[in-house]
Amino acid sequence: VAALAGQQLPRRTLTLPPGEQTKSLAHLAEICRWLAQNGATRKSTLVAMGGGVIGDLVGFAAATYMRGIQYIQIPTTLLAQVDSSVGGKVAVDIPEGKNLVGAFHQPAAVYIPIDLLQHLPSRQFNNGMAEIWKYGFIMDRELTERLQKNPQPTGNDLHEIIEACIRHKAHVVAEDEFETKGLRAILNFGHTVGHAIEQALGYSSLLHGEAISIGMVAESRLGELLGLTPPGTTQIIRSCLEASSLPTRFFAQFGPQHMHQDRLADPEALVNAMRRDKKATSGKLAFSLLTSIGGCKLIDGVEEQFVYQALQEI
Amino acid sequence: VAALAGQQLPRRTLTLPPGEQTKSLAHLAEICRWLAQNGATRKSTLVAMGGGVIGDLVGFAAATYMRGIQYIQIPTTLLAQVDSSVGGKVAVDIPEGKNLVGAFHQPAAVYIPIDLLQHLPSRQFNNGMAEIWKYGFIMDRELTERLQKNPQPTGNDLHEIIEACIRHKAHVVAEDEFETKGLRAILNFGHTVGHAIEQALGYSSLLHGEAISIGMVAESRLGELLGLTPPGTTQIIRSCLEASSLPTRFFAQFGPQHMHQDRLADPEALVNAMRRDKKATSGKLAFSLLTSIGGCKLIDGVEEQFVYQALQEI
Repeated sequence: VAALAGQQLPRRTLTLPPGEQTKSLAHLAEICRWLAQNGATRKSTLVAMGGGVIGDLVGFAAATYMRGIQYIQIPTTLLAQVDSSVGGKVAVDIPEGKNLVGAFHQPAAVYIPIDLLQHLPSRQFNNGMAEIWKYGFIMDRELTERLQKNPQPTGNDLHEIIEACIRHKAHVVAEDEFETKGLRAILNFGHTVGHAIEQALGYSSLLHGEAISIGMVAESRLGELLGLTPPGTTQIIRSCLEASSLPTRFFAQFGPQHMHQDRLADPEALVNAMRRDKKATSGKLAFSLLTSIGGCKLIDGVEEQFVYQALQEI
Repeated sequence: VAALAGQQLPRRTLTLPPGEQTKSLAHLAEICRWLAQNGATRKSTLVAMGGGVIGDLVGFAAATYMRGIQYIQIPTTLLAQVDSSVGGKVAVDIPEGKNLVGAFHQPAAVYIPIDLLQHLPSRQFNNGMAEIWKYGFIMDRELTERLQKNPQPTGNDLHEIIEACIRHKAHVVAEDEFETKGLRAILNFGHTVGHAIEQALGYSSLLHGEAISIGMVAESRLGELLGLTPPGTTQIIRSCLEASSLPTRFFAQFGPQHMHQDRLADPEALVNAMRRDKKATSGKLAFSLLTSIGGCKLIDGVEEQFVYQALQEI
């Protein structure tokens, strides 16, 4: 983004490196120190321009600098546009897990520069498609059908789809801003397994959307095993995601760096990570699981044996 | 505190080193990682037992771990009992200033173990007396007169005084929890100068109460120079604080480590630090200044020349 903006960057800009590694307490310190050094006060407004990493990190800096200042999100990736920039969830990672240190802090405004998506590499575009499919799977059968007809939307079609996703997200967040009612947690479909995969792989090999793509297939299968998700749903979901060139298998080889011929990660390490998931209580796993294509439900107290089996079968 | 508790410490206890240096983002990371490693969930309750450093740091960890969990304050110093444990202001320091990264996060409960004060060294006790005097100066003439008669309260007298201070604090916080109305900021009397002194000295040589003791004298003189504080108030305040063995001079020698015969710190460095104070806007200094013994007012846009003069004259 900084390279694209070139000389047009505002004078007071801090440029941060891309990648999940940037979502750390060390970079939070860097931003807060930079703010103080540049004379930022409680009346200052911070602008986060970049993908989800930048939005989450800069939003958390805004939540905590002087106990909270105003900020504006300008998400530049499809993933951030349809998901992380809306809803005020901001956070950084610690080695024990993703987003484990953070806050709820609503942006004063979110600008969505859809035109910038033309500069997005196709892998990054598909990364965002994973979250778009998610909205279809959990709460919008029509959106799912629309995407099945055109899994690589562009132009006005893309514009409408992004808008639909943001409306869904905003509606859920308005009903359950602080995730206390069990409603907002439904947006976590695919994320319990997905976050665990990201953590096991060190947040570097797979993009977030790729990890939750595999996570959605795994959690769909988990729902089938628990008798909640209609049989055959996993196959439908896999076809959808593969139409957007997203990975959907736990037992497979991913990318040139991943020579695991057997499985993506150690299942026990994944389940350990899931126990630290924010939805979990007293070590009991919780998942947002599908009741149909277009509906879902938060289920807690899931037995770990079913999670192992679901991973085994995808 | 850990040494006093000995074997009675709960099994899941993290012991942190004393001193302002502990109020850092590095220790925030340590606490959050420890919580995750010990399986803490969103339903867990964190207990902060110790002085103000521990309360502020652990409270900030509770505010941010999994975007906020419940916590309980058990302040063990007089300073923390009458001030920092009540009101939900939690924070850590960065090199650019004190409490610059934090949150508003109310404790679920505050237990005040007054009996523990018997173990408090007298310098630490006087440290707390500085904040008690402050409540008298800014909003309670009767409390000031009571303390003038007995500047080293004990027993039931001390109990009543602590209770009075907490009531004052709770009242102000209830009216202006997020410090947006200019009311809560009055509690900052002595703190604009005091924080700057602490920062210039590296948070180590003077205790917080000692720094704000000097700060209250300086800001009282500043109020006199601005025509807001009745002439002679500075002398009264100095006598009060000296009765509790607190330092009150900017031009003096403090302790064996401080061989400055002339002044405590570089006045320009102090004013620079004051410009980064959270009450300042656009580099204009703001102070809570006395209108009488027992009344005060938030004043912004104070010219720096008066601040230099006030420091010069105390």
